[in-house]
Amino acid sequence: MREIHAITELRDALAKERAAGQSVGFVPTMGALHDGHLALIAKAREDCDLVVVSIFVNPAQFDRRTDLASYPRDPEGDSRIADDNGVDLLFCPSVEEMYPDHYYTYVFVEDLSAVLCGSVRPGHFRGVTTVVAKLLNIARPDIAYFGEKDYQQLVIVKRMVADLNMDADIVGVPTVRDADGLAISSRNTLLNATEREDATVIPRALFMARDMAGRRGVAASRIMERVRMAIGEEPRVRIEYLNVVDPQTLRDVRQVDDKALVAVAAYVGEVRLIDNIMVGPGA
Amino acid sequence: MREIHAITELRDALAKERAAGQSVGFVPTMGALHDGHLALIAKAREDCDLVVVSIFVNPAQFDRRTDLASYPRDPEGDSRIADDNGVDLLFCPSVEEMYPDHYYTYVFVEDLSAVLCGSVRPGHFRGVTTVVAKLLNIARPDIAYFGEKDYQQLVIVKRMVADLNMDADIVGVPTVRDADGLAISSRNTLLNATEREDATVIPRALFMARDMAGRRGVAASRIMERVRMAIGEEPRVRIEYLNVVDPQTLRDVRQVDDKALVAVAAYVGEVRLIDNIMVGPGA
Repeated sequence: MREIHAITELRDALAKERAAGQSVGFVPTMGALHDGHLALIAKAREDCDLVVVSIFVNPAQFDRRTDLASYPRDPEGDSRIADDNGVDLLFCPSVEEMYPDHYYTYVFVEDLSAVLCGSVRPGHFRGVTTVVAKLLNIARPDIAYFGEKDYQQLVIVKRMVADLNMDADIVGVPTVRDADGLAISSRNTLLNATEREDATVIPRALFMARDMAGRRGVAASRIMERVRMAIGEEPRVRIEYLNVVDPQTLRDVRQVDDKALVAVAAYVGEVRLIDNIMVGPGA
Repeated sequence: MREIHAITELRDALAKERAAGQSVGFVPTMGALHDGHLALIAKAREDCDLVVVSIFVNPAQFDRRTDLASYPRDPEGDSRIADDNGVDLLFCPSVEEMYPDHYYTYVFVEDLSAVLCGSVRPGHFRGVTTVVAKLLNIARPDIAYFGEKDYQQLVIVKRMVADLNMDADIVGVPTVRDADGLAISSRNTLLNATEREDATVIPRALFMARDMAGRRGVAASRIMERVRMAIGEEPRVRIEYLNVVDPQTLRDVRQVDDKALVAVAAYVGEVRLIDNIMVGPGA
């Protein structure tokens, strides 16, 4: 595995590979690599000749400085994990490399960025779409992989790529969960043992929602009420938002006729977690 | 010359040419082709194997509906002119092709888009950068050409391409002027004979500014005062803005030590014209 820090170096390395007919799979990450990332890397490994992983904790997508400061970082561990899992190129640019002085350009996806996480994290998705646009332009992959755990991000990135006529396929990879159901996230490492236990109420509530909505016509309000009650049993878990939405438009649905996404954000102590599940007879 | 309306058709045509080692020069226009465009096309012809011109009156960059409606259009004439001037591919997408339903994504360059034309045409440069990002992603040119007549646009597009790590060279081409000095613009066709005559006060005032600022240290305020006086002699020409700015940052300068850009927008009757000139000992 080759580790690269400069944009031009990655570009040159990839230009050679592309000229030799190699297809490029790209997994953008913020590091602290875990089994969720490994599922993305495995899929890229399966589909493409060359696997590029980026590690960049993107300041532009953090709405709070403290969140940026406490975001887990483990460059040596990440490098070892990437190497062990068949990554060919690991791209670790500095903040100055990505956002030099007089950096002014932002990419924004209206409408889809205003709901769910967008409604509580101002500027978050603008930061995500901007850095993803940059990374896609730098790596020019055939396929880029994103986890369905960040479902809204996946929908927004797909829309950006289609709207801006970017030339990459965006592929979503199913959420990876621990044995107790908790969706794997870099932020899970910030939970203490009690919080870790408490947090499992989130996937339990979502699985219950899926079971409820197996038949046509279940009201979104009923699903949300039951999910709120279930999560409410853990007093240290505070729901930030809970919505039942159309998986494409991310707009609230009133009842689940085909497929709908139940999306939740919750604080467990000071740690904000998100999760989602596809429900309905079409799910 | 081949005329293409669909994005996928242009992509496929260019992929073949690129695979055959042809370099691509791209000239994005809003049509009503004139000698200014022909200078861009000639430069592209000189530098590149293949010349692609796009014609798209981009609704996203018009801040007023009436301006969009009255913008000059001549598809048959444009096609003939392009063919006569060695254009290989003429790309004329529909509005629906460029902005389909559920189009949500915009590219915005902060700071540089807030001054000069940006201060009086809200949303204009957001529309420009968005459509240019799309067109560059579709055509993937080696070089794209922009007129220096729209100097702010050129600076903003260069910044966008650098910031988003897009892989095209952006080249500015000097303003082409009619024999009487007026910068050639599609909007000139909207002037009646008297207005056409009156409008020539704009380049005369700019040439005077250039003559004034040949030595170091001339105050911007003095240049602006003289330009205002000169243009003021034509009562039917109303200055919208007049600034002496740094050519890179577009920020106002107090005095001209090296190079500065004198930029003006003025209404002649109902027609808004812009022009600029580089001044100073380094110009």
